[in-house]
Amino acid sequence: MKKEVKNRTAEDFAKEQREISISEFFLKNKHLLGFDNTRKALLTTIKEAVDNSLDACEDARILPEIKIIVEEISEERFKVTVEDNGPGIVKEQVPKIFAKLLYGSKFHKLKCSRGQQGIGISAAVMYGQLTTGKAAHITSKIQKGKQAHHYELHIDTKKNEPEIINDILVDWNKDRGTKVQIFLEAKYQKGKQGIDEYLRQTAIVNPHLDLTYTNPEKQKIEFPRATKELPKEPKEIKPHPYGVELGILMKMLQDSSSSKLSGFLQKDFCRVSSKVAKEICEKANLPEKARPKRIAKQEIENLMKAIKNTKIMAPPTDCVTPIGEDLIVKGLKKEIDADFYAAVTRPPSVYRGNPFIVEAGIAYGGSIPSDDLIRLLRFANRVPLQYQQSAGAITKSVINTAWRNYGLSQSRGALPSGPVVIMVHIASVWVPFTSESKEAIAHYPEIIKEIKLALQECGRKLGNFIRKNVKAKEQRERINLFENYIPELASSLNNLTGDKKEEIEENLKKILKKGLPELEKNGQTE
Amino acid sequence: MKKEVKNRTAEDFAKEQREISISEFFLKNKHLLGFDNTRKALLTTIKEAVDNSLDACEDARILPEIKIIVEEISEERFKVTVEDNGPGIVKEQVPKIFAKLLYGSKFHKLKCSRGQQGIGISAAVMYGQLTTGKAAHITSKIQKGKQAHHYELHIDTKKNEPEIINDILVDWNKDRGTKVQIFLEAKYQKGKQGIDEYLRQTAIVNPHLDLTYTNPEKQKIEFPRATKELPKEPKEIKPHPYGVELGILMKMLQDSSSSKLSGFLQKDFCRVSSKVAKEICEKANLPEKARPKRIAKQEIENLMKAIKNTKIMAPPTDCVTPIGEDLIVKGLKKEIDADFYAAVTRPPSVYRGNPFIVEAGIAYGGSIPSDDLIRLLRFANRVPLQYQQSAGAITKSVINTAWRNYGLSQSRGALPSGPVVIMVHIASVWVPFTSESKEAIAHYPEIIKEIKLALQECGRKLGNFIRKNVKAKEQRERINLFENYIPELASSLNNLTGDKKEEIEENLKKILKKGLPELEKNGQTE
Repeated sequence: MKKEVKNRTAEDFAKEQREISISEFFLKNKHLLGFDNTRKALLTTIKEAVDNSLDACEDARILPEIKIIVEEISEERFKVTVEDNGPGIVKEQVPKIFAKLLYGSKFHKLKCSRGQQGIGISAAVMYGQLTTGKAAHITSKIQKGKQAHHYELHIDTKKNEPEIINDILVDWNKDRGTKVQIFLEAKYQKGKQGIDEYLRQTAIVNPHLDLTYTNPEKQKIEFPRATKELPKEPKEIKPHPYGVELGILMKMLQDSSSSKLSGFLQKDFCRVSSKVAKEICEKANLPEKARPKRIAKQEIENLMKAIKNTKIMAPPTDCVTPIGEDLIVKGLKKEIDADFYAAVTRPPSVYRGNPFIVEAGIAYGGSIPSDDLIRLLRFANRVPLQYQQSAGAITKSVINTAWRNYGLSQSRGALPSGPVVIMVHIASVWVPFTSESKEAIAHYPEIIKEIKLALQECGRKLGNFIRKNVKAKEQRERINLFENYIPELASSLNNLTGDKKEEIEENLKKILKKGLPELEKNGQTE
Repeated sequence: MKKEVKNRTAEDFAKEQREISISEFFLKNKHLLGFDNTRKALLTTIKEAVDNSLDACEDARILPEIKIIVEEISEERFKVTVEDNGPGIVKEQVPKIFAKLLYGSKFHKLKCSRGQQGIGISAAVMYGQLTTGKAAHITSKIQKGKQAHHYELHIDTKKNEPEIINDILVDWNKDRGTKVQIFLEAKYQKGKQGIDEYLRQTAIVNPHLDLTYTNPEKQKIEFPRATKELPKEPKEIKPHPYGVELGILMKMLQDSSSSKLSGFLQKDFCRVSSKVAKEICEKANLPEKARPKRIAKQEIENLMKAIKNTKIMAPPTDCVTPIGEDLIVKGLKKEIDADFYAAVTRPPSVYRGNPFIVEAGIAYGGSIPSDDLIRLLRFANRVPLQYQQSAGAITKSVINTAWRNYGLSQSRGALPSGPVVIMVHIASVWVPFTSESKEAIAHYPEIIKEIKLALQECGRKLGNFIRKNVKAKEQRERINLFENYIPELASSLNNLTGDKKEEIEENLKKILKKGLPELEKNGQTE
């Protein structure tokens, strides 16, 4: 072996060490944010904007009206416009919200919302800039009578800071609202993972949304709202003591504005009454009046143990807003022609101190193709998840449920097959996604358990239906067979008894009819 | 509906907007970094440290010797020590490398390496701090005769900056090297996703590594090196013009130190000769002497188009270092008792300008259980991937390969089943993982295509073996059946011809033997 160069040393390597900005990181790893390819980029861009619009409208208790226009301006170059009637965004906040990754209002809160990270829409702006070099255009108006502010924004990816290209006041014939326009390299394609399907599914689980969508073929598609009632307002909650980790507890104590430990426990956590706080302090051997900032490390460990050894009520769960069994069945009925529908909303549960609710719906038969694997629709906080199906907790739970018990065929390690659509929705104050692009839910055992329970409950209902149906069908077949012999039997009996052949036949038929169970074939719901 | 509170306005929402530090982000989303649960946390911590040690040794052309000690110091509390004989780290760099996320030397390079993001080891330090409150201890020595520097580090998660708890000089009886000690909440468990399996697989694909591992049961396990030859030194390459995006090209032009466009193209990209540079400039209608920083946006778009319309050689591929077919078969043979082995190293290919190589290996029969789904071993740049099997391009490719053609049974949408172990390795200057925890490879079509080609090639070899084997077995069974009739047949022939019964029997047996094909049953390799 010849050595061409001197081996490099620690000093040589040191010169190569550099800081990486979060924007640079995600620019290089844009697939982590849902920008793997041009088709998905279009979906992600629209999704991030719609998520924000819906969150903003619901937070401000405004019935959402969203307009989406997708235009192909040249080959593989698109202009996406998403306009809402939300509360608008104050001028100073616009650049950071749209052109700085990791900036937002939802990350530090525990509250059901679609967005949670402060990355999504800025990532869409960054992707647009990367692929077309063009600035994003943001128009926002916060009050009737005022003018709207209009920004053209880039991201300085080296610093992860907004770069303001243009900043003007404009007239906008609208009371309030925000309009986002992004130019990007994209591909428009229909199908299971396309934007048309995304909007269809979004409309199903957001019946209060009024949506107008103009596709690149210039067709205007309307999704009128099905209800004027906004979903229950999601409440923000404090973290639950059982979900806190030692390092977080240390930080919380350090950052606390409370002057006393007891106050800190009551104020910064949920479900800690003064009585519970007292008990925790006693068990930790710490005075209730101890100054949070002054508690030593070993004492914090004792505090942790004391929390774990104190009985504390589970977190409140009215902060989590499910879609509800009725609405799920309605949604499925609207979109899927089937013979049988069922839905289950599980009671709230908790993972790592975070309350969540799992819901499942099922549709069977009708015009659903029966010779393929089942179709799975996944949702998180009312957002459809269209990618990474195989990666997440939902698919895992479906695969690990024993569908043969409920009358479906299923190969090992695979989804069941048959004329079935299954939908699963998880609502939580913090949904643990497997990636920043929020496409699949991480494998937390508590979540998987709840999904499986929901699926089993739906499965049992389906099983009953299939059993009844199959049994009834078999019985009918048996009866039909017997019916063919009635004339012959009637003749024989007529020979033996001398009764009228026609009467005998009629009586035999009556007997048979009694044995035939009633069966409504269409639109069954359990 | 009663309104309890005044609806909130844009001003109210503005007050809630905040910046999120990257450390806070990953602290809350620690499952993105591989810290989903205590068992995985132990694996990830060791993996990140070992990845760094191996990269450092190979970069400095040192045959790696790594010592790992995992101790359970109290219930669910562990101390992990990983010590290497690498080049060491200069004092000033230690805090940032170990206690600042997104800091490193590999992110801005295109080069085959295990680490690439500058997140991993700092994430392990952060997780240790989160769960135990304890600082990480780092000892590093860069030169024989000098003292080692010893640091105790925390991460200030609000600022994403190191916090130095202690910083001293110590004697260390070693020429050079780095020792990392992290205290963390963890769980030790053997099995497919445990650290024992990780180290076993790491030893298979890194035969130049000398590894000593002391597990929490205080058993010392040695993995002696199988070769003294280091893998070929991976070369760094410049990006290929075909892989560049408009936004990146703009940034590169802005940042370039070249004074002329032609020089920029030749210096900042691979495969651009002065001739190619000239051609690009001509097609873009730009002077070769144009100042890179001065090129206007529209001109950059023309430059992009010119690049796409110019024939440029594929990127060099000697920068990608495969394991090699021999070594894969050797590795499989060492670890798996089978009847048949095969391996394929595909020629280099390119995705988005990044060269990569796919390799696959297969083992069949022997003592591999035959009544289950096949076992799949996945590797990226010589690192075993043990989690998220169902999420990545490798599993997708295995599922979408028609294994029935090669004699295995397979249900739709599932892995094939049978007594088979399949291994797939992807080596690249930039591996696109589906998450920061680097557990699965993103679904890039070019990568999936290469994996499928490698699998098909292995599959054909396997199919030949199974066909031969199965055919031979069937023939043997037919012959055995016939053999049973020989005495009777011989008697009949004896009656008819009068020849000696014994002679007839012997002749019949001879004829049968000729029909029986030779078959080596053990250790076949194609």
